Amino acid sequence: MPSNDIKRTELSALGEFGLIDHLTASLKYKQDSTQTGVGDDAAVIDMGDKYLLLSTDLLLEGIQFDLTYTPLRHLGYKAVVTSISDIYAMNGTPTQITIGIGISKRFSVEMLDELYDGIRLACDTYNVDLVGGDTTSSLTGLTISTSAVGFVDKKKVAYRSGAKENDLICVSGNLGAAFMGLQILEREKRVFAGNTNVQPQLEGFDYILQRQLKPEAQKDIIDLLSELGIQPTSMIDLSDGLASDTLQICKSSKVGARIYLDKMPIASETFRAGEEMNFDPAVAALNGGEDYELLFTVPIELHEQLKNLAGIDVIGHITSESAGTFLVTPDGGEIPLQAQGWDSQE
Amino acid sequence: MPSNDIKRTELSALGEFGLIDHLTASLKYKQDSTQTGVGDDAAVIDMGDKYLLLSTDLLLEGIQFDLTYTPLRHLGYKAVVTSISDIYAMNGTPTQITIGIGISKRFSVEMLDELYDGIRLACDTYNVDLVGGDTTSSLTGLTISTSAVGFVDKKKVAYRSGAKENDLICVSGNLGAAFMGLQILEREKRVFAGNTNVQPQLEGFDYILQRQLKPEAQKDIIDLLSELGIQPTSMIDLSDGLASDTLQICKSSKVGARIYLDKMPIASETFRAGEEMNFDPAVAALNGGEDYELLFTVPIELHEQLKNLAGIDVIGHITSESAGTFLVTPDGGEIPLQAQGWDSQE
Repeated sequence: MPSNDIKRTELSALGEFGLIDHLTASLKYKQDSTQTGVGDDAAVIDMGDKYLLLSTDLLLEGIQFDLTYTPLRHLGYKAVVTSISDIYAMNGTPTQITIGIGISKRFSVEMLDELYDGIRLACDTYNVDLVGGDTTSSLTGLTISTSAVGFVDKKKVAYRSGAKENDLICVSGNLGAAFMGLQILEREKRVFAGNTNVQPQLEGFDYILQRQLKPEAQKDIIDLLSELGIQPTSMIDLSDGLASDTLQICKSSKVGARIYLDKMPIASETFRAGEEMNFDPAVAALNGGEDYELLFTVPIELHEQLKNLAGIDVIGHITSESAGTFLVTPDGGEIPLQAQGWDSQE
Repeated sequence: MPSNDIKRTELSALGEFGLIDHLTASLKYKQDSTQTGVGDDAAVIDMGDKYLLLSTDLLLEGIQFDLTYTPLRHLGYKAVVTSISDIYAMNGTPTQITIGIGISKRFSVEMLDELYDGIRLACDTYNVDLVGGDTTSSLTGLTISTSAVGFVDKKKVAYRSGAKENDLICVSGNLGAAFMGLQILEREKRVFAGNTNVQPQLEGFDYILQRQLKPEAQKDIIDLLSELGIQPTSMIDLSDGLASDTLQICKSSKVGARIYLDKMPIASETFRAGEEMNFDPAVAALNGGEDYELLFTVPIELHEQLKNLAGIDVIGHITSESAGTFLVTPDGGEIPLQAQGWDSQE
């Protein structure tokens, strides 16, 4: 029987990242091939001439997705993308994926066909093979587990831990779009449930809806960096939001950071949705998560090379650890970056 | 929105294996390194000098486990064992594992500590490193996903598909113990709930309870076969029961089989529990599943070498595909082997 009679510490007392640290603190690695385990986007396993990368994600109905407004085809696509995004975040190339699904009786074969259409499309788009999985019945919601495998040249691997003082902090694409897309969908859901008098209004938000429902992984950025011969000193994918993910790099690298509010790339549609929903798009960028853009650091010497690159923005720089991690506002104010709590979507 | 307005085919119409076949039928492999994908215990990825093995399992509360009588420590141990069992079933050696967990608020840090104590113990026992995972909140029950990585010499890999006519069918350990252990636990649960007048009686069933709650993977058998220089022509781990798993080998190898009822190894405690519960232990062996023993085939020339080996029994032989797959009773009767339905535990 579960031990309910012993000391009880709530999960919220540790928070998600604290919990992971707590559970994995006493792990000892026995295999010589284990290069890096828990604590990065993917585990790194030494294969002699290169590194094998391995990453696992769990998507649960009602937590990571809501089938009220998520087409199953998009969900399948997104499951693959979120999984291989962790491989790109190590500067690697994903090659294979396995997918486990738990399904209740309310699902039909046709519904699963839609899910797998999306899975197949993403696998084709990113040149990844679906090589296995597990299928089980579920008493409750839909459960999707993914494990992505990939490879990276030993010289090219990018950990979270390599950021150095004065490095530039860069980000691909734009931020907060997926979160604002989610807000639009949640509004639509409330309208549908009759809980508001506002008329449904999805029109004009195609871009941010797509960013939420069918995100893409940043293969093009990895390819671009490779072509330009740019080796990131550290990298992470933006799944939890800019604030959380910057803190992850700072913690792993034992450094601090300054992010400039007015440098954060935010799409016009994200701004417009923010206005309509009365929600600050900067907060969406900082804490929204699910953007699956890449956050990385490079030596300051690369500033000239980077500043005119389409699709990449320099948003700040790395400082000493003692200088802390702050968001700098246009008036020079400094706001401490804060990680999200336990109920984060990832 | 999920497409409820189109044709609806129930999952039960295809069954678990039919569903997997259906969903993966049109998969095309694009990576040269993908040696074998869906359809074996683990995916096989060509690493040049050896094969990488990759396997994923999903364990859902209420389906694969019942926390009413499953200690979390044992559950953690079992999660690792069931995952690496798939690597042994390819004649490989597991090296790394990732674990994703979905947890609701009813779990405390101390409960997760117990789960991870079991995970760590299994990792230490089998010399496997826990290298990553994912932690998410769950609206419902506990969800555990595992992905095991391992390696195998190219010459040693054992697929499901290599069984040849006249090969001997062998099994490690004994069968049906885990299922009869489950029946004892389910009886205890009914007693606990006051739904029966029978007194709880777990005493005397230590062995089969252990087989259900804290099974072991068959590392020793793989090591023994290697020492003896025995290369299985096909192999699978017994997760779904002897009948289902024999059918998997026959389907993959395009052969038939004869399994002899009186050759099936069944432990005395399994017999005794069967008597007490009025349940035929042979049915437990055939359909119970979760034994995590190895079922494998070897050329008939090895009969002398195998027949006196402790821990391995020859239970039948491979026939031509047209001869079908049958259980042979002591009186010479032949009963067709049947796979389990959709609600199987694995």
